[in-house]
Amino acid sequence: MHRSVQRHRDEGFGLDELAQAARNHGMPLEALRSEITPAGLHYLLIHYDVPFLDPADWALAFEGFDRPLRLTVDDLRARPRVTVPVTLECAGNGRAMFDTRPLSQPWLREAVGTAAWTGTPLAPLLRDAGIPDGTVEVAFAGSDRGVEDGEEQAYERALSLEDATRDGVMVAYEMNGQPLLPQHGAPARLVVPGFYGMAHVKWLDRISALGLPFEGYQNIVAYRMRTDPDETGTPLSRIRVKSLMVPPGVPTFPERDRIVRAGHVRLEGRAWSGSAAIERVQVSLDGCSSWHDATVDLAPAPHAWQRWTFDWTATPGPHDLACRATDATGATQPLEPEPNLGGYANNAVHRVRVTVRG
Amino acid sequence: MHRSVQRHRDEGFGLDELAQAARNHGMPLEALRSEITPAGLHYLLIHYDVPFLDPADWALAFEGFDRPLRLTVDDLRARPRVTVPVTLECAGNGRAMFDTRPLSQPWLREAVGTAAWTGTPLAPLLRDAGIPDGTVEVAFAGSDRGVEDGEEQAYERALSLEDATRDGVMVAYEMNGQPLLPQHGAPARLVVPGFYGMAHVKWLDRISALGLPFEGYQNIVAYRMRTDPDETGTPLSRIRVKSLMVPPGVPTFPERDRIVRAGHVRLEGRAWSGSAAIERVQVSLDGCSSWHDATVDLAPAPHAWQRWTFDWTATPGPHDLACRATDATGATQPLEPEPNLGGYANNAVHRVRVTVRG
Repeated sequence: MHRSVQRHRDEGFGLDELAQAARNHGMPLEALRSEITPAGLHYLLIHYDVPFLDPADWALAFEGFDRPLRLTVDDLRARPRVTVPVTLECAGNGRAMFDTRPLSQPWLREAVGTAAWTGTPLAPLLRDAGIPDGTVEVAFAGSDRGVEDGEEQAYERALSLEDATRDGVMVAYEMNGQPLLPQHGAPARLVVPGFYGMAHVKWLDRISALGLPFEGYQNIVAYRMRTDPDETGTPLSRIRVKSLMVPPGVPTFPERDRIVRAGHVRLEGRAWSGSAAIERVQVSLDGCSSWHDATVDLAPAPHAWQRWTFDWTATPGPHDLACRATDATGATQPLEPEPNLGGYANNAVHRVRVTVRG
Repeated sequence: MHRSVQRHRDEGFGLDELAQAARNHGMPLEALRSEITPAGLHYLLIHYDVPFLDPADWALAFEGFDRPLRLTVDDLRARPRVTVPVTLECAGNGRAMFDTRPLSQPWLREAVGTAAWTGTPLAPLLRDAGIPDGTVEVAFAGSDRGVEDGEEQAYERALSLEDATRDGVMVAYEMNGQPLLPQHGAPARLVVPGFYGMAHVKWLDRISALGLPFEGYQNIVAYRMRTDPDETGTPLSRIRVKSLMVPPGVPTFPERDRIVRAGHVRLEGRAWSGSAAIERVQVSLDGCSSWHDATVDLAPAPHAWQRWTFDWTATPGPHDLACRATDATGATQPLEPEPNLGGYANNAVHRVRVTVRG
């Protein structure tokens, strides 16, 4: 079912993968310093091309509901307004660090960001449209079009009715207090706190109530966890527990090795999970042989990342640093990624090798 | 002198190159539709880490001038204010398409963008600081620090006094009507219209008047045109004539092939040169065998890109499209890139293969 050929770690990356990396950008890890990721530093993964839509011509259609609503941007803005910081991570973040990977966006660690999203809650919108009895899923189609598996299509992905009507799910029209940028889904997009990025459909065009499970490409073929091509697999949903570290010191160019001055170093980073608050972050200074508790700040919102800090006295020489988070469900990060065909949900501990100079 | 080992086209790209590509982002080519590149879509090339500076603590120092000025953001804002659209391109744009390339940012075509920069002209600033007799160059140091060639340094690059005092060169503090974003050099950066990106020093910290030519890394080792490691070479300066096309139709994912519907297709793109206005853009529909004149719009400003359009009747089958610009000096784009050790200034024609479906 999942047709892609796997590439091996030792082969290097192809021009086709680089073409994805040149346009889909990650968040430089030093931006982990910011609780709210500044515009333009938040990660972006766009399957097709950015559609540049005119908000004046745009309306959001509801199909399969009791009332065939069409809402303009002004209609959305006239509804109840909420602003919530939400951490988004691409389901494919870390794909390039598996031993084998499919042809896709070759993310290292940077496909993450936290924005303050402003919009209107989805559940009351769906209720106002009238959810027909027997609705099992709600599908969200974007205006972005492309060809996957030989078929031209809009990007479209569905949620169960239960997930679509959860508190926090919204149709967002602002990011960090500004109208959405074209590349983040202007004029309006879905935000599904706690879920990997594929659920947060951009350039929202149509919301459909479905009496049967959605059979579109992004639910049935892509974004599923499989270890065997013949497996049905399970759709990606909640973000796995994860933490990242601001690489300390200064980088070399172009290698991006890290050079740190001896003495006191404040290590810091962010940790998040789509399922629960982060309860613990541990730091290793010896290549994951031993672990020390870091200080973890409270979450600014249920699905926004939490800051962690750890004071380290750096001594000259090489050091293998790492961080590992555990959430309130007890889930923690593995030392090595769990292989799967799509190269999804890599939440292995973040390792950072540094050289300390005296 | 230029120590880097060359990598060959057939080897694939390394994890070290991908680490650069994951953080330095290009402008998706569909954004060529926009005369002014929206925030977050403009290309970024950052040698070290983004410094997150507090504008309240920031001041721009003048060293080696008759008066040791220190100017705050408010001081800059109190001076004469200009806003100009300027096209910036990374000197390394197209590096990944040379037959051999050094380890660096592996750009394909996307390292370009046009912003409306607002700031204060540099020449009167330098005159107010008092340019000492005998000044030959002016060096601009950023707050971003890293290690190149084994030595920790700030990013710093110099211009001749003549180039530094040209009309249009400014200390910019706004981009597209907003305060500079952290990744674009907040609180203030240099803008040098017509020059490749390496001259537009971000996070400007210090301006130094020099009686002898600057011997810093970015002028003497990096950003020089050389074909032999023992050559002194010449510093990169003005952007070579170039054009790009919005890839028509829709992309496949993840391959990013282009699928176009038969019939009328409006081909469009932008063209620019750091030396003169664009006088001609030609389009080829047959793999650069024959060329047809496109319509070229006037430049919105002397160093901002110019839109071009061409109406094409697409017939089913594969087509090899290309575009080629010529500027008012007569300079035009080559069919193949001119090899050089740094992988700089690749302005070969843009070729786009499309498949037209009936």
